[in-house]
Amino acid sequence: MAADITKEEIAEAYRQIQSEICSAIEKADGTGTFKSDHWKRDEGGGGHTRILEDGSVLEKAGVNFSEVYGPFSELMQQSMNTDASAFFATGVSIVMHPINPHVPIIHMNIRYFEMSDGTYWFGGGIDLTPHYIDQGQAAFFHKALKKVCDKHDRNYYPRFKKWADEYFFIPHRNETRGVGGIFYDHLSEDASHSKSSIFEFSKDVGNLFGDVYTKLISENRGRQFSEKEKEWQMIRRGRYVEFNLVYDRGTKFGLQSNGRTESILMSLPKQAMWFYNRDPDVASPEGKTVSLLKKGVDWVDLN
Amino acid sequence: MAADITKEEIAEAYRQIQSEICSAIEKADGTGTFKSDHWKRDEGGGGHTRILEDGSVLEKAGVNFSEVYGPFSELMQQSMNTDASAFFATGVSIVMHPINPHVPIIHMNIRYFEMSDGTYWFGGGIDLTPHYIDQGQAAFFHKALKKVCDKHDRNYYPRFKKWADEYFFIPHRNETRGVGGIFYDHLSEDASHSKSSIFEFSKDVGNLFGDVYTKLISENRGRQFSEKEKEWQMIRRGRYVEFNLVYDRGTKFGLQSNGRTESILMSLPKQAMWFYNRDPDVASPEGKTVSLLKKGVDWVDLN
Repeated sequence: MAADITKEEIAEAYRQIQSEICSAIEKADGTGTFKSDHWKRDEGGGGHTRILEDGSVLEKAGVNFSEVYGPFSELMQQSMNTDASAFFATGVSIVMHPINPHVPIIHMNIRYFEMSDGTYWFGGGIDLTPHYIDQGQAAFFHKALKKVCDKHDRNYYPRFKKWADEYFFIPHRNETRGVGGIFYDHLSEDASHSKSSIFEFSKDVGNLFGDVYTKLISENRGRQFSEKEKEWQMIRRGRYVEFNLVYDRGTKFGLQSNGRTESILMSLPKQAMWFYNRDPDVASPEGKTVSLLKKGVDWVDLN
Repeated sequence: MAADITKEEIAEAYRQIQSEICSAIEKADGTGTFKSDHWKRDEGGGGHTRILEDGSVLEKAGVNFSEVYGPFSELMQQSMNTDASAFFATGVSIVMHPINPHVPIIHMNIRYFEMSDGTYWFGGGIDLTPHYIDQGQAAFFHKALKKVCDKHDRNYYPRFKKWADEYFFIPHRNETRGVGGIFYDHLSEDASHSKSSIFEFSKDVGNLFGDVYTKLISENRGRQFSEKEKEWQMIRRGRYVEFNLVYDRGTKFGLQSNGRTESILMSLPKQAMWFYNRDPDVASPEGKTVSLLKKGVDWVDLN
């Protein structure tokens, strides 16, 4: 085994990925630019939050990088069942909300966690939330994810696709957030995977983002939309808010651990709506989309 | 002690309060009318959800009545630390979101809970969330609550006002939801209070709602508002969504216990907004309001 990569190398690679993604997305948007906020964390480390608002395609897009470290609180030790005295965590988190309801919402996260006793793991995921599901585009998205997964381990895609189905689910609505994607956590070296190979996988997930979303933007940005479709987008964004505030573990952990609120909640859309008990007609495009918001759909090979 | 009032009497009184409040609010609004949804709960009981949308004053207003009962799940027994095999719960829950940002958002809840072993308690509260705080109106609101509290127990208002300050607080924003009000829970008979006197208090809280909110509507409904003030309202509604989805115990319990989602989430506004890191000028009306969103303000006797 080669000398293990260090946490500094991982953070540097993630920082680089943040920068490349922002460049690619600015280019895809055409007019929007990411503003930068560098912030410090009192207990150690900090982050770089980049936000694009009111672009040509994107209404609100956030790309967070963070590298935080410091002593474990007793509470964190208990919840992680460890004696380790300190931790280090770095990652990139992305959520993008487009103006046009035919452009999907997208989310991506890659992260690395290490404790002072040497324990470490990688986690992350990427998932797509179309306001209107286009099955061809959902297939394109999942095939791109599968290709990156297959390069590293043929078991990754089926395992992580299922994990995403479970994770990005809204129990009180009995629907998935969107068409899913992949989700993984607690990956560390084992008989078949070195630390550096998992790191490579993590970078590949990050590097996939720009190409995939740029393609989805260019395919949909010119599509006409009606008031009714815009309203439906607002309703779907409301569900996105529900998922993020009620269930998303990263959001909950961030808010509970006194994280930087504005960086955590950059995932919320500029605008969202809630109407009482308004279900779309089953036969409408909106109803068709809802009928596909379920676990276990084989997007790569739809019948 | 007189023969104890029954759960059926309590439910009937609450049902009556729902009906009277809806009438008073329709009258105050002028054109909006409450639609009715009667619903059943598979495990026992049901409810009556009444929603007014797109009135003259109110954009979205919900008044829920529910009367549910049935066997305790093992999980509920554990979380309530009881051997009781069944429960009964009834209550009225209200949230109203006005169109005009100078009319405050209001919330009220009265509830009664009883277990098959005879244990019971009352809970509830009422709190006001102005988009722009008017100190005179906040004082009016708190004085009205104090008057009702004082009629029953001189300790109620200070105790329940403080409880509301603690409860209606958003830690990740380090601000209260609004100007607070009263919050109480687990009230049952003791040396100084009979069950029926607590029931009377609970009804007085419910009966207070219509008069107080009608006054606040009539004082503010005619006030002009700008685009900027409307946008500020959307931001404050965003905070309301954050409180309800992240912290509100009733909402969380409802969603986790497979409650009727549309009745629980009627508390969410028709529309809300989130801008990245946008803080108002300290000297602006918006900044002034934020400076007052803190615990421990003596609204009844402001200096």
